[in-house]
Amino acid sequence: MTEKMLGVLGGMGPLASAQFMVRLTLLTPAERDQDHIPTVLWSDPRVPDRTAARLGTGEDPLPALLRGLRGLEAAGCGAIAIPCNTAHGWFAGMRAATRLPILHIVDAAAEDLHRQGVAPGPVGVMGTAATLAMGLYQEGLAGAGRDCLLPDAEVMARLVTPAIALVKANRVAEAYEPLAEAARSLVARGARAVVLGCTEIPLGITAGPALPFAVVDTIDALARAAIAWARG
Amino acid sequence: MTEKMLGVLGGMGPLASAQFMVRLTLLTPAERDQDHIPTVLWSDPRVPDRTAARLGTGEDPLPALLRGLRGLEAAGCGAIAIPCNTAHGWFAGMRAATRLPILHIVDAAAEDLHRQGVAPGPVGVMGTAATLAMGLYQEGLAGAGRDCLLPDAEVMARLVTPAIALVKANRVAEAYEPLAEAARSLVARGARAVVLGCTEIPLGITAGPALPFAVVDTIDALARAAIAWARG
Repeated sequence: MTEKMLGVLGGMGPLASAQFMVRLTLLTPAERDQDHIPTVLWSDPRVPDRTAARLGTGEDPLPALLRGLRGLEAAGCGAIAIPCNTAHGWFAGMRAATRLPILHIVDAAAEDLHRQGVAPGPVGVMGTAATLAMGLYQEGLAGAGRDCLLPDAEVMARLVTPAIALVKANRVAEAYEPLAEAARSLVARGARAVVLGCTEIPLGITAGPALPFAVVDTIDALARAAIAWARG
Repeated sequence: MTEKMLGVLGGMGPLASAQFMVRLTLLTPAERDQDHIPTVLWSDPRVPDRTAARLGTGEDPLPALLRGLRGLEAAGCGAIAIPCNTAHGWFAGMRAATRLPILHIVDAAAEDLHRQGVAPGPVGVMGTAATLAMGLYQEGLAGAGRDCLLPDAEVMARLVTPAIALVKANRVAEAYEPLAEAARSLVARGARAVVLGCTEIPLGITAGPALPFAVVDTIDALARAAIAWARG
Protein backbone atom coordinates (compact mmCIF):
# COMPACT_ATOMS: atom_id res chain seq x y z
CA MET A 1 0.00 0.00 0.00
CA THR A 2 1.41 3.35 -1.05
CA GLU A 3 1.29 6.51 1.03
CA LYS A 4 1.89 8.65 -2.07
CA MET A 5 -1.11 10.43 -3.53
CA LEU A 6 -1.26 11.11 -7.25
CA GLY A 7 -2.80 14.33 -8.57
CA VAL A 8 -4.53 14.21 -11.95
CA LEU A 9 -5.14 17.53 -13.67
CA GLY A 10 -7.98 16.48 -15.94
CA GLY A 11 -11.21 17.45 -17.62
CA MET A 12 -9.38 18.02 -20.91
CA GLY A 13 -11.49 16.28 -22.03
CA PRO A 14 -13.47 14.79 -19.17
CA LEU A 15 -13.95 11.41 -20.87
CA ALA A 16 -10.20 11.08 -21.39
CA SER A 17 -9.45 11.79 -17.74
CA ALA A 18 -12.19 9.39 -16.59
CA GLN A 19 -10.69 6.73 -18.84
CA PHE A 20 -7.25 7.56 -17.41
CA MET A 21 -8.64 6.68 -13.97
CA VAL A 22 -10.04 3.39 -15.31
CA ARG A 23 -6.74 2.44 -16.95
CA LEU A 24 -4.68 3.56 -13.95
CA THR A 25 -6.76 1.18 -11.85
CA LEU A 26 -6.71 -1.75 -14.27
CA LEU A 27 -2.94 -1.48 -14.90
CA THR A 28 -2.14 -1.47 -11.15
CA PRO A 29 -1.36 -4.92 -9.74
CA ALA A 30 -3.99 -5.28 -7.01
CA GLU A 31 -5.94 -7.86 -5.07
CA ARG A 32 -8.14 -5.48 -3.07
CA ASP A 33 -9.09 -1.80 -2.84
CA GLN A 34 -6.24 -1.00 -0.49
CA ASP A 35 -3.60 -2.06 -3.09
CA HIS A 36 -4.61 0.76 -5.44
CA ILE A 37 -3.05 4.23 -5.75
CA PRO A 38 -4.69 7.08 -3.82
CA THR A 39 -5.55 9.68 -6.43
CA VAL A 40 -7.30 13.03 -6.65
CA LEU A 41 -8.72 13.86 -10.07
CA TRP A 42 -9.35 17.56 -10.67
CA SER A 43 -11.68 17.37 -13.68
CA ASP A 44 -12.35 20.92 -14.78
CA PRO A 45 -13.78 20.94 -18.29
CA ARG A 46 -14.06 24.74 -18.11
CA VAL A 47 -10.34 25.10 -18.91
CA PRO A 48 -10.29 27.23 -22.09
CA ASP A 49 -9.74 25.24 -25.27
CA ARG A 50 -6.00 24.56 -25.59
CA THR A 51 -6.00 24.24 -29.36
CA ALA A 52 -7.85 27.52 -29.91
CA ALA A 53 -5.46 29.29 -27.55
CA ARG A 54 -2.34 27.95 -29.20
CA LEU A 55 -3.66 28.76 -32.67
CA GLY A 56 -4.30 32.33 -31.50
CA THR A 57 -8.09 32.35 -31.46
CA GLY A 58 -8.88 31.57 -27.81
CA GLU A 59 -8.32 32.49 -24.19
CA ASP A 60 -5.11 31.51 -22.37
CA PRO A 61 -5.73 28.29 -20.37
CA LEU A 62 -2.76 28.75 -18.02
CA PRO A 63 -4.66 30.50 -15.20
CA ALA A 64 -7.22 27.66 -15.10
CA LEU A 65 -4.43 25.05 -15.21
CA LEU A 66 -2.72 26.76 -12.26
CA ARG A 67 -5.99 26.81 -10.28
CA GLY A 68 -6.17 23.04 -10.72
CA LEU A 69 -2.54 22.64 -9.63
CA ARG A 70 -3.29 24.70 -6.51
CA GLY A 71 -6.23 22.43 -5.71
CA LEU A 72 -4.14 19.27 -6.13
CA GLU A 73 -1.34 20.72 -3.98
CA ALA A 74 -3.86 21.57 -1.26
CA ALA A 75 -5.20 18.00 -1.38
CA GLY A 76 -1.74 16.68 -0.50
CA CYS A 77 -0.73 15.20 -3.85
CA GLY A 78 2.92 14.30 -4.42
CA ALA A 79 3.09 14.38 -8.23
CA ILE A 80 0.92 15.52 -11.14
CA ALA A 81 -0.24 13.68 -14.27
CA ILE A 82 -2.06 15.58 -17.02
CA PRO A 83 -3.99 13.32 -19.42
CA CYS A 84 -4.14 15.98 -22.15
CA ASN A 85 -1.31 16.20 -24.66
CA THR A 86 -2.10 19.73 -25.87
CA ALA A 87 -1.99 21.10 -22.31
CA HIS A 88 1.70 20.12 -22.29
CA GLY A 89 2.23 23.20 -24.45
CA TRP A 90 2.00 25.05 -21.12
CA PHE A 91 4.32 22.61 -19.32
CA ALA A 92 7.04 25.18 -18.61
CA GLY A 93 4.55 27.61 -17.11
CA MET A 94 3.05 24.90 -14.92
CA ARG A 95 6.41 23.54 -13.85
CA ALA A 96 7.57 27.00 -12.84
CA ALA A 97 4.46 27.43 -10.69
CA THR A 98 4.58 24.26 -8.54
CA ARG A 99 7.07 22.42 -6.39
CA LEU A 100 5.46 19.10 -7.40
CA PRO A 101 6.97 16.96 -10.15
CA ILE A 102 4.83 16.80 -13.31
CA LEU A 103 5.04 13.54 -15.27
CA HIS A 104 5.48 14.54 -18.95
CA ILE A 105 3.17 12.68 -21.34
CA VAL A 106 5.70 12.77 -24.21
CA ASP A 107 8.34 11.14 -21.98
CA ALA A 108 5.75 8.51 -21.09
CA ALA A 109 5.05 7.90 -24.79
CA ALA A 110 8.78 7.57 -25.54
CA GLU A 111 9.10 5.06 -22.72
CA ASP A 112 6.15 3.10 -24.13
CA LEU A 113 7.77 2.89 -27.60
CA HIS A 114 10.77 1.36 -25.82
CA ARG A 115 8.58 -0.97 -23.69
CA GLN A 116 6.86 -2.27 -26.83
CA GLY A 117 10.19 -2.83 -28.61
CA VAL A 118 9.19 -0.79 -31.67
CA ALA A 119 11.79 -1.19 -34.42
CA PRO A 120 14.09 1.76 -35.17
CA GLY A 121 12.73 4.23 -37.70
CA PRO A 122 10.11 6.95 -37.90
CA VAL A 123 6.90 6.89 -35.89
CA GLY A 124 3.59 8.42 -36.82
CA VAL A 125 2.07 10.97 -34.46
CA MET A 126 -1.60 11.91 -34.41
CA GLY A 127 -2.75 14.80 -32.24
CA THR A 128 -4.53 18.10 -32.20
CA ALA A 129 -3.43 20.69 -34.73
CA ALA A 130 -1.93 22.64 -31.81
CA THR A 131 0.08 19.68 -30.46
CA LEU A 132 1.55 19.09 -33.91
CA ALA A 133 2.17 22.80 -34.56
CA MET A 134 3.98 23.19 -31.21
CA GLY A 135 6.26 20.28 -32.09
CA LEU A 136 5.73 18.56 -28.72
CA TYR A 137 6.45 15.11 -30.15
CA GLN A 138 8.93 16.21 -32.82
CA GLU A 139 11.12 17.73 -30.10
CA GLY A 140 10.38 15.15 -27.44
CA LEU A 141 11.11 12.09 -29.58
CA ALA A 142 14.23 13.55 -31.21
CA GLY A 143 16.07 12.69 -28.00
CA ALA A 144 15.05 9.06 -28.53
CA GLY A 145 16.38 9.21 -32.10
CA ARG A 146 12.93 9.11 -33.67
CA ASP A 147 11.67 11.14 -36.61
CA CYS A 148 7.95 11.89 -36.60
CA LEU A 149 5.58 11.42 -39.53
CA LEU A 150 2.54 13.70 -39.21
CA PRO A 151 -0.83 13.58 -40.93
CA ASP A 152 -0.97 16.10 -43.78
CA ALA A 153 -3.34 19.06 -43.70
CA GLU A 154 -6.03 17.24 -45.66
CA VAL A 155 -6.01 14.24 -43.29
CA MET A 156 -6.09 16.54 -40.27
CA ALA A 157 -9.05 18.54 -41.59
CA ARG A 158 -11.04 15.59 -42.92
CA LEU A 159 -10.29 12.90 -40.32
CA VAL A 160 -8.33 13.71 -37.17
CA THR A 161 -9.74 17.06 -36.05
CA PRO A 162 -13.41 16.08 -36.60
CA ALA A 163 -12.85 12.73 -34.82
CA ILE A 164 -11.40 14.44 -31.73
CA ALA A 165 -14.48 16.68 -31.62
CA LEU A 166 -16.76 13.60 -31.90
CA VAL A 167 -15.16 12.08 -28.77
CA LYS A 168 -15.55 15.35 -26.86
CA ALA A 169 -19.26 15.26 -27.83
CA ASN A 170 -19.58 11.66 -26.47
CA ARG A 171 -19.90 10.21 -30.03
CA VAL A 172 -17.03 7.80 -29.42
CA ALA A 173 -17.93 4.92 -31.76
CA GLU A 174 -18.22 7.28 -34.74
CA ALA A 175 -14.63 8.40 -34.18
CA TYR A 176 -13.13 4.95 -34.84
CA GLU A 177 -13.13 4.81 -38.63
CA PRO A 178 -11.65 8.27 -39.35
CA LEU A 179 -8.95 7.74 -36.72
CA ALA A 180 -8.14 4.24 -38.01
CA GLU A 181 -7.90 5.59 -41.57
CA ALA A 182 -5.53 8.35 -40.48
CA ALA A 183 -3.37 5.86 -38.55
CA ARG A 184 -3.24 3.47 -41.52
CA SER A 185 -2.11 6.30 -43.78
CA LEU A 186 0.88 6.98 -41.49
CA VAL A 187 1.88 3.31 -41.51
CA ALA A 188 1.58 3.28 -45.32
CA ARG A 189 4.11 6.16 -45.35
CA GLY A 190 6.61 4.12 -43.32
CA ALA A 191 5.72 4.67 -39.65
CA ARG A 192 6.90 1.79 -37.43
CA ALA A 193 4.17 2.62 -34.89
CA VAL A 194 1.58 5.35 -34.37
CA VAL A 195 1.50 7.52 -31.26
CA LEU A 196 -2.08 8.44 -30.33
CA GLY A 197 -0.88 11.85 -29.14
CA CYS A 198 -4.21 13.29 -28.04
CA THR A 199 -6.04 11.53 -25.20
CA GLU A 200 -9.34 11.59 -27.09
CA ILE A 201 -7.79 9.44 -29.85
CA PRO A 202 -7.34 6.18 -27.87
CA LEU A 203 -10.99 6.42 -26.81
CA GLY A 204 -12.03 6.32 -30.48
CA ILE A 205 -9.42 3.74 -31.51
CA THR A 206 -10.41 1.29 -28.76
CA ALA A 207 -14.08 1.55 -29.80
CA GLY A 208 -13.40 -0.69 -32.83
CA PRO A 209 -11.24 -3.61 -33.99
CA ALA A 210 -7.60 -3.55 -32.90
CA LEU A 211 -5.26 -2.05 -35.51
CA PRO A 212 -2.74 -4.49 -37.04
CA PHE A 213 0.32 -2.42 -36.04
CA ALA A 214 1.81 -0.98 -32.85
CA VAL A 215 0.14 2.04 -31.32
CA VAL A 216 1.13 4.07 -28.27
CA ASP A 217 -1.98 4.84 -26.24
CA THR A 218 -0.97 8.00 -24.37
CA ILE A 219 -3.62 7.39 -21.70
CA ASP A 220 -2.06 4.01 -20.91
CA ALA A 221 1.50 5.33 -21.25
CA LEU A 222 0.83 8.11 -18.72
CA ALA A 223 -0.93 5.65 -16.39
CA ARG A 224 2.13 3.37 -16.49
CA ALA A 225 4.37 6.35 -15.68
CA ALA A 226 2.11 7.25 -12.75
CA ILE A 227 2.17 3.68 -11.40
CA ALA A 228 5.98 3.66 -11.66
CA TRP A 229 6.08 6.93 -9.69
CA ALA A 230 3.70 5.63 -7.01
CA ARG A 231 5.63 2.40 -6.55
CA GLY A 232 9.11 3.90 -6.99
CA MET B 1 -21.94 25.59 -18.67
CA THR B 2 -22.43 25.01 -14.97
CA GLU B 3 -20.58 26.84 -12.22
CA LYS B 4 -21.38 24.09 -9.72
CA MET B 5 -18.61 21.66 -8.88
CA LEU B 6 -19.46 18.09 -7.93
CA GLY B 7 -17.44 16.25 -5.31
CA VAL B 8 -17.07 12.49 -5.65
CA LEU B 9 -15.96 10.58 -2.58
CA GLY B 10 -14.54 7.52 -4.28
CA GLY B 11 -11.93 4.82 -4.26
CA MET B 12 -14.42 2.33 -2.80
CA GLY B 13 -13.49 0.60 -5.01
CA PRO B 14 -11.33 2.65 -7.34
CA LEU B 15 -12.60 0.97 -10.51
CA ALA B 16 -16.19 1.75 -9.55
CA SER B 17 -15.43 5.43 -8.98
CA ALA B 18 -13.45 5.64 -12.24
CA GLN B 19 -16.40 4.09 -14.05
CA PHE B 20 -18.69 6.57 -12.28
CA MET B 21 -16.64 9.37 -13.88
CA VAL B 22 -16.97 7.71 -17.31
CA ARG B 23 -20.73 7.30 -16.98
CA LEU B 24 -21.18 10.81 -15.53
CA THR B 25 -19.47 12.12 -18.65
CA LEU B 26 -21.30 9.93 -21.16
CA LEU B 27 -24.74 10.61 -19.61
CA THR B 28 -24.22 14.40 -19.70
CA PRO B 29 -25.62 16.06 -22.83
CA ALA B 30 -22.53 17.77 -24.27
CA GLU B 31 -21.05 18.98 -27.52
CA ARG B 32 -17.66 20.08 -26.19
CA ASP B 33 -15.48 19.89 -23.07
CA GLN B 34 -16.97 23.06 -21.61
CA ASP B 35 -20.51 21.53 -21.50
CA HIS B 36 -19.42 18.90 -18.93
CA ILE B 37 -19.72 19.06 -15.14
CA PRO B 38 -16.68 20.26 -13.17
CA THR B 39 -15.89 17.44 -10.76
CA VAL B 40 -13.29 16.57 -8.17
CA LEU B 41 -12.87 12.85 -7.51
CA TRP B 42 -11.26 11.99 -4.20
CA SER B 43 -10.24 8.38 -4.85
CA ASP B 44 -8.82 7.02 -1.63
CA PRO B 45 -8.68 3.23 -1.73
CA ARG B 46 -7.11 3.22 1.73
CA VAL B 47 -10.53 3.73 3.36
CA PRO B 48 -10.88 0.71 5.67
CA ASP B 49 -13.08 -2.05 4.28
CA ARG B 50 -16.72 -1.07 4.89
CA THR B 51 -18.05 -4.60 4.93
CA ALA B 52 -15.50 -5.83 7.47
CA ALA B 53 -16.23 -2.83 9.70
CA ARG B 54 -20.00 -3.31 9.61
CA LEU B 55 -19.67 -7.03 10.26
CA GLY B 56 -17.53 -6.23 13.31
CA THR B 57 -14.16 -7.46 12.09
CA GLY B 58 -12.52 -4.29 10.77
CA GLU B 59 -11.52 -0.72 11.47
CA ASP B 60 -14.10 2.11 11.42
CA PRO B 61 -13.99 3.84 8.01
CA LEU B 62 -15.70 7.05 9.18
CA PRO B 63 -12.50 9.03 9.93
CA ALA B 64 -11.16 8.31 6.41
CA LEU B 65 -14.54 9.22 4.90
CA LEU B 66 -14.52 12.52 6.77
CA ARG B 67 -10.97 13.28 5.57
CA GLY B 68 -12.24 12.88 2.02
CA LEU B 69 -15.21 15.15 2.69
CA ARG B 70 -12.85 17.80 4.10
CA GLY B 71 -10.75 17.59 0.94
CA LEU B 72 -13.80 17.99 -1.31
CA GLU B 73 -15.09 20.91 0.75
CA ALA B 74 -11.67 22.60 0.48
CA ALA B 75 -11.74 22.11 -3.30
CA GLY B 76 -14.95 24.14 -3.49
CA CYS B 77 -17.43 21.37 -4.24
CA GLY B 78 -21.16 22.09 -3.85
CA ALA B 79 -22.50 18.55 -3.35
CA ILE B 80 -21.16 15.06 -2.73
CA ALA B 81 -21.79 11.78 -4.54
CA ILE B 82 -20.43 8.52 -3.09
CA PRO B 83 -20.27 5.66 -5.62
CA CYS B 84 -20.12 2.97 -2.90
CA ASN B 85 -23.37 1.56 -1.54
CA THR B 86 -21.87 0.10 1.63
CA ALA B 87 -20.35 3.46 2.61
CA HIS B 88 -23.93 4.75 2.90
CA GLY B 89 -24.07 2.83 6.17
CA TRP B 90 -22.15 5.84 7.54
CA PHE B 91 -24.45 8.36 5.82
CA ALA B 92 -25.75 9.89 9.05
CA GLY B 93 -22.23 10.39 10.38
CA MET B 94 -21.11 12.02 7.16
CA ARG B 95 -24.21 14.20 6.86
CA ALA B 96 -23.72 15.46 10.40
CA ALA B 97 -20.12 16.42 9.58
CA THR B 98 -20.59 18.54 6.45
CA ARG B 99 -22.72 21.46 5.32
CA LEU B 100 -22.76 20.03 1.77
CA PRO B 101 -25.72 18.00 0.51
CA ILE B 102 -24.90 14.31 -0.05
CA LEU B 103 -26.82 12.61 -2.86
CA HIS B 104 -28.07 9.29 -1.43
CA ILE B 105 -27.44 6.30 -3.71
CA VAL B 106 -30.58 4.45 -2.53
CA ASP B 107 -32.74 7.47 -3.41
CA ALA B 108 -31.04 7.49 -6.81
CA ALA B 109 -31.83 3.79 -7.27
CA ALA B 110 -35.48 4.35 -6.30
CA GLU B 111 -35.71 7.17 -8.82
CA ASP B 112 -34.23 4.89 -11.48
CA LEU B 113 -36.84 2.18 -10.82
CA HIS B 114 -39.44 4.90 -11.45
CA ARG B 115 -37.61 6.21 -14.56
CA GLN B 116 -37.55 2.69 -16.03
CA GLY B 117 -41.24 2.15 -15.31
CA VAL B 118 -40.67 -1.10 -13.44
CA ALA B 119 -44.00 -2.79 -12.70
CA PRO B 120 -45.30 -2.80 -9.10
CA GLY B 121 -44.06 -5.68 -6.99
CA PRO B 122 -40.90 -6.82 -5.26
CA VAL B 123 -37.42 -6.01 -6.54
CA GLY B 124 -34.28 -8.03 -6.12
CA VAL B 125 -31.31 -6.39 -4.44
CA MET B 126 -27.74 -7.60 -4.76
CA GLY B 127 -25.05 -6.00 -2.63
CA THR B 128 -22.35 -6.66 -0.09
CA ALA B 129 -23.25 -8.71 2.96
CA ALA B 130 -22.98 -5.51 4.98
CA THR B 131 -25.32 -3.49 2.74
CA LEU B 132 -27.94 -6.23 2.98
CA ALA B 133 -27.44 -6.71 6.75
CA MET B 134 -27.82 -2.96 7.38
CA GLY B 135 -31.10 -2.94 5.46
CA LEU B 136 -30.11 0.08 3.35
CA TYR B 137 -32.39 -0.95 0.48
CA GLN B 138 -35.07 -2.65 2.55
CA GLU B 139 -35.62 0.62 4.45
CA GLY B 140 -34.96 2.93 1.52
CA LEU B 141 -37.34 1.23 -0.90
CA ALA B 142 -40.13 0.71 1.65
CA GLY B 143 -41.01 4.38 1.14
CA ALA B 144 -41.52 3.63 -2.56
CA GLY B 145 -43.79 0.70 -1.65
CA ARG B 146 -41.30 -1.94 -2.72
CA ASP B 147 -40.45 -5.18 -0.95
CA CYS B 148 -36.90 -6.43 -1.45
CA LEU B 149 -35.91 -9.97 -2.38
CA LEU B 150 -32.38 -10.77 -1.27
CA PRO B 151 -29.99 -13.52 -2.32
CA ASP B 152 -29.94 -16.29 0.28
CA ALA B 153 -26.81 -17.09 2.28
CA GLU B 154 -25.69 -19.80 -0.12
CA VAL B 155 -25.95 -17.49 -3.16
CA MET B 156 -24.13 -14.74 -1.29
CA ALA B 157 -21.27 -17.02 -0.26
CA ARG B 158 -20.92 -18.87 -3.57
CA LEU B 159 -21.65 -16.12 -6.10
CA VAL B 160 -22.10 -12.51 -4.99
CA THR B 161 -19.34 -12.01 -2.39
CA PRO B 162 -16.62 -13.75 -4.47
CA ALA B 163 -17.66 -11.82 -7.60
CA ILE B 164 -17.36 -8.45 -5.82
CA ALA B 165 -13.85 -9.45 -4.73
CA LEU B 166 -12.97 -10.40 -8.33
CA VAL B 167 -13.88 -6.88 -9.53
CA LYS B 168 -11.80 -5.29 -6.77
CA ALA B 169 -8.88 -7.47 -7.97
CA ASN B 170 -9.36 -6.20 -11.59
CA ARG B 171 -10.73 -9.61 -12.72
CA VAL B 172 -13.88 -8.03 -14.11
CA ALA B 173 -14.82 -10.46 -16.88
CA GLU B 174 -14.75 -13.42 -14.47
CA ALA B 175 -17.35 -11.71 -12.32
CA TYR B 176 -20.04 -11.74 -15.01
CA GLU B 177 -21.34 -15.29 -14.79
CA PRO B 178 -21.70 -15.57 -10.99
CA LEU B 179 -23.41 -12.17 -10.84
CA ALA B 180 -25.72 -13.02 -13.75
CA GLU B 181 -26.66 -16.33 -12.07
CA ALA B 182 -27.45 -14.55 -8.80
CA ALA B 183 -29.58 -11.96 -10.62
CA ARG B 184 -31.48 -14.64 -12.55
CA SER B 185 -32.25 -16.47 -9.31
CA LEU B 186 -33.90 -13.32 -7.91
CA VAL B 187 -36.05 -12.90 -11.02
CA ALA B 188 -37.02 -16.58 -10.80
CA ARG B 189 -38.29 -15.84 -7.27
CA GLY B 190 -40.52 -13.03 -8.56
CA ALA B 191 -38.37 -9.89 -8.68
CA ARG B 192 -39.65 -7.34 -11.21
CA ALA B 193 -36.13 -5.90 -11.55
CA VAL B 194 -32.76 -6.34 -9.88
CA VAL B 195 -30.93 -3.49 -8.17
CA LEU B 196 -27.16 -3.83 -8.56
CA GLY B 197 -26.68 -2.40 -5.08
CA CYS B 198 -22.88 -2.51 -4.91
CA THR B 199 -20.96 -0.43 -7.43
CA GLU B 200 -18.64 -3.32 -8.27
CA ILE B 201 -21.63 -5.34 -9.52
CA PRO B 202 -22.49 -3.24 -12.62
CA LEU B 203 -18.83 -3.49 -13.69
CA GLY B 204 -19.15 -7.28 -13.77
CA ILE B 205 -22.65 -7.32 -15.26
CA THR B 206 -21.71 -5.01 -18.15
CA ALA B 207 -18.72 -7.24 -18.99
CA GLY B 208 -21.06 -9.81 -20.59
CA PRO B 209 -24.32 -10.10 -22.53
CA ALA B 210 -27.19 -7.85 -21.39
CA LEU B 211 -29.59 -9.55 -18.97
CA PRO B 212 -33.15 -10.10 -20.29
CA PHE B 213 -34.81 -8.16 -17.44
CA ALA B 214 -34.61 -4.69 -15.91
CA VAL B 215 -31.62 -3.88 -13.75
CA VAL B 216 -30.81 -0.73 -11.81
CA ASP B 217 -27.13 0.11 -12.29
CA THR B 218 -26.36 2.15 -9.17
CA ILE B 219 -23.35 3.79 -10.86
CA ASP B 220 -25.61 5.14 -13.61
CA ALA B 221 -28.42 5.99 -11.17
CA LEU B 222 -26.07 8.07 -9.02
CA ALA B 223 -24.58 9.72 -12.12
CA ARG B 224 -28.09 10.71 -13.25
CA ALA B 225 -28.80 12.18 -9.80
CA ALA B 226 -25.54 14.15 -9.97
CA ILE B 227 -26.36 15.51 -13.43
CA ALA B 228 -29.82 16.56 -12.19
CA TRP B 229 -28.16 18.36 -9.27
CA ALA B 230 -25.62 20.12 -11.51
CA ARG B 231 -28.26 21.27 -13.97
CA GLY B 232 -30.97 22.00 -11.41
